Amino acid sequence: MEAKLSELAELIGIEIPEESKNIIISGIAPLETATKNNITFITGDKFLKKLEECNATAILIQKKFSPPDNIIPLYVDDPFYSYIKILEYFNPRRSEDIASGISPNAIIEESAKLGSNVSVAPFVYIGAGVTIGDNTTIGAGTIILKDSSIGSGCLLYPNISIIDRTSIGNNVIIHAGVVIGSDGFGFYPKNGSLVKVPQIGIVEIGDNVELQANTCIDRAVMGVTRIEAGVKLDNLVHVGHNVQIGSNTVLAGQIGIAGSVRIGKGVQAGGQAGFAEHIKVGDGAGVAGQAGVTKDVPPGIIVSGYPAKEHRKAILEEIHIRNLPNLKQKIKELEKRISELENR
Amino acid sequence: MEAKLSELAELIGIEIPEESKNIIISGIAPLETATKNNITFITGDKFLKKLEECNATAILIQKKFSPPDNIIPLYVDDPFYSYIKILEYFNPRRSEDIASGISPNAIIEESAKLGSNVSVAPFVYIGAGVTIGDNTTIGAGTIILKDSSIGSGCLLYPNISIIDRTSIGNNVIIHAGVVIGSDGFGFYPKNGSLVKVPQIGIVEIGDNVELQANTCIDRAVMGVTRIEAGVKLDNLVHVGHNVQIGSNTVLAGQIGIAGSVRIGKGVQAGGQAGFAEHIKVGDGAGVAGQAGVTKDVPPGIIVSGYPAKEHRKAILEEIHIRNLPNLKQKIKELEKRISELENR
Amino acid sequence: MEAKLSELAELIGIEIPEESKNIIISGIAPLETATKNNITFITGDKFLKKLEECNATAILIQKKFSPPDNIIPLYVDDPFYSYIKILEYFNPRRSEDIASGISPNAIIEESAKLGSNVSVAPFVYIGAGVTIGDNTTIGAGTIILKDSSIGSGCLLYPNISIIDRTSIGNNVIIHAGVVIGSDGFGFYPKNGSLVKVPQIGIVEIGDNVELQANTCIDRAVMGVTRIEAGVKLDNLVHVGHNVQIGSNTVLAGQIGIAGSVRIGKGVQAGGQAGFAEHIKVGDGAGVAGQAGVTKDVPPGIIVSGYPAKEHRKAILEEIHIRNLPNLKQKIKELEKRISELENR
Repeated sequence: MEAKLSELAELIGIEIPEESKNIIISGIAPLETATKNNITFITGDKFLKKLEECNATAILIQKKFSPPDNIIPLYVDDPFYSYIKILEYFNPRRSEDIASGISPNAIIEESAKLGSNVSVAPFVYIGAGVTIGDNTTIGAGTIILKDSSIGSGCLLYPNISIIDRTSIGNNVIIHAGVVIGSDGFGFYPKNGSLVKVPQIGIVEIGDNVELQANTCIDRAVMGVTRIEAGVKLDNLVHVGHNVQIGSNTVLAGQIGIAGSVRIGKGVQAGGQAGFAEHIKVGDGAGVAGQAGVTKDVPPGIIVSGYPAKEHRKAILEEIHIRNLPNLKQKIKELEKRISELENR
Repeated sequence: MEAKLSELAELIGIEIPEESKNIIISGIAPLETATKNNITFITGDKFLKKLEECNATAILIQKKFSPPDNIIPLYVDDPFYSYIKILEYFNPRRSEDIASGISPNAIIEESAKLGSNVSVAPFVYIGAGVTIGDNTTIGAGTIILKDSSIGSGCLLYPNISIIDRTSIGNNVIIHAGVVIGSDGFGFYPKNGSLVKVPQIGIVEIGDNVELQANTCIDRAVMGVTRIEAGVKLDNLVHVGHNVQIGSNTVLAGQIGIAGSVRIGKGVQAGGQAGFAEHIKVGDGAGVAGQAGVTKDVPPGIIVSGYPAKEHRKAILEEIHIRNLPNLKQKIKELEKRISELENR
Repeated sequence: MEAKLSELAELIGIEIPEESKNIIISGIAPLETATKNNITFITGDKFLKKLEECNATAILIQKKFSPPDNIIPLYVDDPFYSYIKILEYFNPRRSEDIASGISPNAIIEESAKLGSNVSVAPFVYIGAGVTIGDNTTIGAGTIILKDSSIGSGCLLYPNISIIDRTSIGNNVIIHAGVVIGSDGFGFYPKNGSLVKVPQIGIVEIGDNVELQANTCIDRAVMGVTRIEAGVKLDNLVHVGHNVQIGSNTVLAGQIGIAGSVRIGKGVQAGGQAGFAEHIKVGDGAGVAGQAGVTKDVPPGIIVSGYPAKEHRKAILEEIHIRNLPNLKQKIKELEKRISELENR
């Protein structure tokens, strides 16, 4: 795949000099591996030195920097964003590698309604009353149970399980092995055994959500477990019943969220963090990896540790703990001085 | 779906006055969302205030409370338990939504033996020598390998993997993506490489167990990994080889249990807790979320933190740590007073 | 299944006396459960006492120990290693229980190339351009997407998802539910939303790797996520994009590894440990269970706790923390002595 530099310039919305327009670009690569006819990028002055040894033909770069003479600059405000655009151009989203057309080896119940240009791979099961929007792709072995709805432009990878009555928005990407709509974890102790609390609610997932591999989202006891638009959940995340996650929140791998937790918009949390049931995390809060969040977190605050506290305080505590040997030594010295005073 | 109040009263085993018997109830809902013709419930006096604005037609309530005149009381000892019973009535378990009849697109080896009224969804594989009890339902894409046995009244969701010779009791619910009987994690270092220790044992799962989505239970090296009756495991739990989990123990999401751990009966553990290999946890013990249990836990004791210690002690330590700035300040003051004494 | 003792002796490369050669052995079992005609083993003198009550016919034992007269000794340098060899003999690897021959219910795209003696179970999908080496077995419901390659002698259990262009070596074992090649977790904030960074790299897995159930390995943003030869990953492990794991490293259940982490050769890490992005862990390092590794770990060093520090230091800190009540008491006493001095 190749492109004229003029085509790439148009793609990212900039003008380039006439003499550069017909230069042929055959790929995009980072500084270290870019070769002749590649376009590369830098995002700050710390990369300028490496640039001198770079063989790229063109570079995405901010106006304040000057590349070596042998590399054609494409001046942009946000080189990384332009890099993403060109990366997509050279490596278009590969939904057709996941499924192409409707496989005769899929089973689609008669009452299911598929939009136009839907692709369904082999061994997919689509239950009664399911609706699937235009241009959505469903990977092999994915199972979609009764009365679920999936929007348009979605990409579902293989071996996903979507349990009945789940609602998924548009342009959602779901990776392999994800489970959506499994029962919440609720049992009531009665006469020495545990009675299952029926889980009759549903899961609703907004537009532009991405769910990574083997993540699990439980349906609500009653009502809705809700993942708002633009949320990104990494691999192996556990979302309990009735949880609400606000738009554009990003949760890293293996995070666990107990039942009825409410996480705000634009929250960022690190891998393996845990959230105890019923707590609220405010908009724009930050949660460090492995933090054990047992209380509400106000908007915009960063917490860490177990039990999670304001990160600033956690660091101070850590310093105090590291100072303990000194403290002990100090006390020893004071004791000696007191003894001497007592013996005067 | 509708019911006369007399039918619901019979269901939960109480008498109601003649004039209430023909009242029609069309659903069950919590206080906040209950509408006319709904039945609701309260479990304590803190909900009495909300009750005044509730539009429900009837309520499950203890004798010591009085509902407003416009709501018909159904006096019961345990309103939440009665609520579960009525919830099940209005929302019967939906095994027929998972599978109904034997799909011609399932593959069942000839030597497998299925009881009466077994339902098998498309793309299910049932291996040679497998036995399945009456009224069990197997969801699409679930794979059951050779010589496994599954009891009666079980509900298996889609995309489950049951490896050979696994034994599962009656009335077991298994959610999507669960893996049972995968190899334990055992390797022996020899001449600079790792030799696999053959994992020739099995997994046995008792009656009334529920396993949530994507949980993994390893087979024993030799002998049995045993999950006793009534155990509930949440999403993404890891159970190592040769682990024993006692009856009615409840383990929350993402708990990890290393090889040969023995957990007693009626234990409750919070999300992301971890158990080091070979330890024993006594009956009725409690383990806080994210606790790292590295030593035996006596029966009935609650532990937390890393390394896990008695919860009471962990809280005291936490208080001592939070007091460190004061301690440091105190030492500073004492030092000053000593200096003054020395200078007298 | 039975064997003459002479056959077992040959298998483990030792000579035995003429009179023992025709003794029939029908199984192998640990000390506690071994019965007549079984062979057992001990690995140290602490087991000698139990040996006196053992009914085994023969034993794998080091020369420095003497078994009771009724048990025939097979003297070996490494009894556990010999035990593994005999265990494999009596319980040969059961790839034929996973799949045998090519199922007519699998779908194999025309351009896929399968070696000799490959077995493919029902509901397996093998995409265009996939290559599979000799003697490899693929379990039911496993999906292998376009242009992936799998070596010879591999065993893939059911319901695995291998995303396009994944490369897997020889003699690799992959357990049920594993996902390889799902997208890395990369998003770029732009104008209040999150733009997906295309994940165009791949995953490469070396020879003799074993991946346990439901583990996830993300493809690289660009370049390669690399799992070197002999690596063993337990259940539910999360490996982020562009991670490198050195040969013969062993990572226990639910470990999480953020993007671009480099783990050396022969590293051992305990369950639920976490690794922050971009850090390096040196060859032969050790990481305790639940450790939160936020900085580089030098070769051969053992770390624990959060944030992870040298294990020796972590234990000292733990002791200092446990001593805090004493410290507080000591300060109180010093204060009293100072007051007395001041009052003189």
